[in-house]
Amino acid sequence: MLIREKVRQAAALLKEFDLDCWLTFTRESQVMGDPVLPFLTTGDVTWHSSFLVFKDGKARAVVGRYDQKIVEETGAYDEVQAFVTGFKEPLQAILKEANPRTIAVNFSRDSEICDGLTHGLYLTLVDVLGEIGMAGRIVSAERLVSALRERKSAAEIGYMREAIRQTQEIFALVAPFIRPGRTEKEIGDFITAERVRRGLPAAWGAASCPAVFTGPDTAQAHYGPTGRTVQPGHVLNMDFGVKVESYCSDLQRTFYVLRPGESAAPDDVRRGFETIVRTVEAAKRAMKPGVLGLDVDAAARGIVTAAGYEEFPHALGHQVGRFPHDGTALLGPAWEKYARKPFRPLEPGMVFTIEPRLTVPGRGVVTIENMVVVTETGAAWLSDPQTELILAKG
Amino acid sequence: MLIREKVRQAAALLKEFDLDCWLTFTRESQVMGDPVLPFLTTGDVTWHSSFLVFKDGKARAVVGRYDQKIVEETGAYDEVQAFVTGFKEPLQAILKEANPRTIAVNFSRDSEICDGLTHGLYLTLVDVLGEIGMAGRIVSAERLVSALRERKSAAEIGYMREAIRQTQEIFALVAPFIRPGRTEKEIGDFITAERVRRGLPAAWGAASCPAVFTGPDTAQAHYGPTGRTVQPGHVLNMDFGVKVESYCSDLQRTFYVLRPGESAAPDDVRRGFETIVRTVEAAKRAMKPGVLGLDVDAAARGIVTAAGYEEFPHALGHQVGRFPHDGTALLGPAWEKYARKPFRPLEPGMVFTIEPRLTVPGRGVVTIENMVVVTETGAAWLSDPQTELILAKG
Repeated sequence: MLIREKVRQAAALLKEFDLDCWLTFTRESQVMGDPVLPFLTTGDVTWHSSFLVFKDGKARAVVGRYDQKIVEETGAYDEVQAFVTGFKEPLQAILKEANPRTIAVNFSRDSEICDGLTHGLYLTLVDVLGEIGMAGRIVSAERLVSALRERKSAAEIGYMREAIRQTQEIFALVAPFIRPGRTEKEIGDFITAERVRRGLPAAWGAASCPAVFTGPDTAQAHYGPTGRTVQPGHVLNMDFGVKVESYCSDLQRTFYVLRPGESAAPDDVRRGFETIVRTVEAAKRAMKPGVLGLDVDAAARGIVTAAGYEEFPHALGHQVGRFPHDGTALLGPAWEKYARKPFRPLEPGMVFTIEPRLTVPGRGVVTIENMVVVTETGAAWLSDPQTELILAKG
Repeated sequence: MLIREKVRQAAALLKEFDLDCWLTFTRESQVMGDPVLPFLTTGDVTWHSSFLVFKDGKARAVVGRYDQKIVEETGAYDEVQAFVTGFKEPLQAILKEANPRTIAVNFSRDSEICDGLTHGLYLTLVDVLGEIGMAGRIVSAERLVSALRERKSAAEIGYMREAIRQTQEIFALVAPFIRPGRTEKEIGDFITAERVRRGLPAAWGAASCPAVFTGPDTAQAHYGPTGRTVQPGHVLNMDFGVKVESYCSDLQRTFYVLRPGESAAPDDVRRGFETIVRTVEAAKRAMKPGVLGLDVDAAARGIVTAAGYEEFPHALGHQVGRFPHDGTALLGPAWEKYARKPFRPLEPGMVFTIEPRLTVPGRGVVTIENMVVVTETGAAWLSDPQTELILAKG
């Protein structure tokens, strides 16, 4: 169902971008399959496999004999050819017949999600197309693959809403469990047990999903829960997500652990939290189709630094999809590691996180991560935005 | 532990192959990480990450700030540099200082397991090395990565022995469950329940692990169990494996379902099975260091075709490791899809499957898959080879 929808969408995108043919070329997908493969077939492919979509809407595949049946059963292809000894002749025959002026393949300097062709397979493809005089027709499919992943359908958004709902329910359940003396690991185990009880896969590697950081001097991100103990006066933050039908949530929440006699967080913590809330709201207001991610990031980053905090060492927000980081357009600064991603305009249907952070010295990291979808006129919440510190009893 | 061992092994392989530097360059490993990454760090990396091993034994890494701690904790690196905005300057500085004559990177036309560099990352690397006059020093790391994966240590073999032991126990448990009226799916579910009860991950995609095929007219391979019912007179085969510490087993077994009054399989089935047993034994006898996989395959294939059966449409055997298909050298024919893999000589420590198959018309597919390790003088069983048809009560 998803596969038929995506193959049709690909044909429309070929027209939009004036490309004649999109060729996904991959092998041994268990080892390192093109990340676009789940849009093209179910399960894995073994030998050199070619999935072709043409501007006229025709779709063809050339796969190893044992993979033919499962690709045919997707119902997305007009023809699925099987080979035993080699893929070259059937692939060349299809291309000679169609004679496309451009053959878009999955490589990209800038965007990892559009970079599914390995260099060895690229060299093979240049040889095979060279024999029929078509090597010069190879172009990058970055725009097509980006749009295919980024312009989410109602069904895709629906899966992500459900992943977000489940994640938020688990945040609500774990909140009363947070108290002085608990370790990050105990809190993480509580969340994992609840996720497993619900039959939900973790959105990323389970070793750091959830990530839980309590107090100052933590690893801050991308690290698993440790034996560090929750103490009164700590700011605690967690980063967690699940998958529903392979679509991810990715959310962060910030807690404050009350000290004896406190009924609210102290001024420095509240000031940090309110700065982050304002930053999130300003970022969301800045988002609409046509705006560059660069400018959304700059507006948000400026609020944090103007308030006197160090700037966050990462992008303001990334797209989410079948991976927690899934998309080309990025709400990020013009740093080398982000390449051209911050310079792509936003489009309706893109799902982004907004996740500024700052450190409150001696307390911990304040960070909220929400998810929004870009609409025709702006951006709409997919998650319930955190606007109040969650207070843990001291 | 494994990581320190593999990084040391890589330094020794640089000397053996007279290479100065091995550079693994990857990003967003959750999306499409280099399959060699688990030998270099734990967990995932996010931004452009460089892992360098030099001939003198020094190892360095350049990773994003949030990934630094986890890479440092492997204990395998002399230095782990972290960046916030970009990787280019620290990577160039390391290379300028070391000034390697050759920089081996992970791409290969022939071997998917050595082809972890995407084409977009290759283009980026050419730019970055070009700026310091080193783009011309890039060579393929295929031989190094092959040896790193293929020459298994005692610990790696130990994990695989345990995965095989567990798989064989599960085969023994499912055997009495096979009887007329059961569906392939029921048999598959029995195996999966036992695997899950033991806390073992499936060796490949759970949709076809196990694969179960009963009788004639099945998909034959790479397909999940269906609602097809076991009938008296069927030949039934299954393909199954598990992972222990990320190392796989991959085994097949053949069963015969007795008809009323039968106490043994009929002649046509026995003849097919005995042909496969002879083929397996001949293949194992043909294996020793220095022999080409091509020749082992040809000897085995010849026994099947000389007995009057159609030749199997796949290689006789593949290497196994962290993936079910893991390695470059292959016991296979000189077919286009196998590229140069069958032309690589066997080496001690390689773990191969031996899995010839044939069809007994009107009955089903006879196939046995065993696993062996290449020794200094030949090959030794890792699995208990199936030498008798397993008879299911009719």
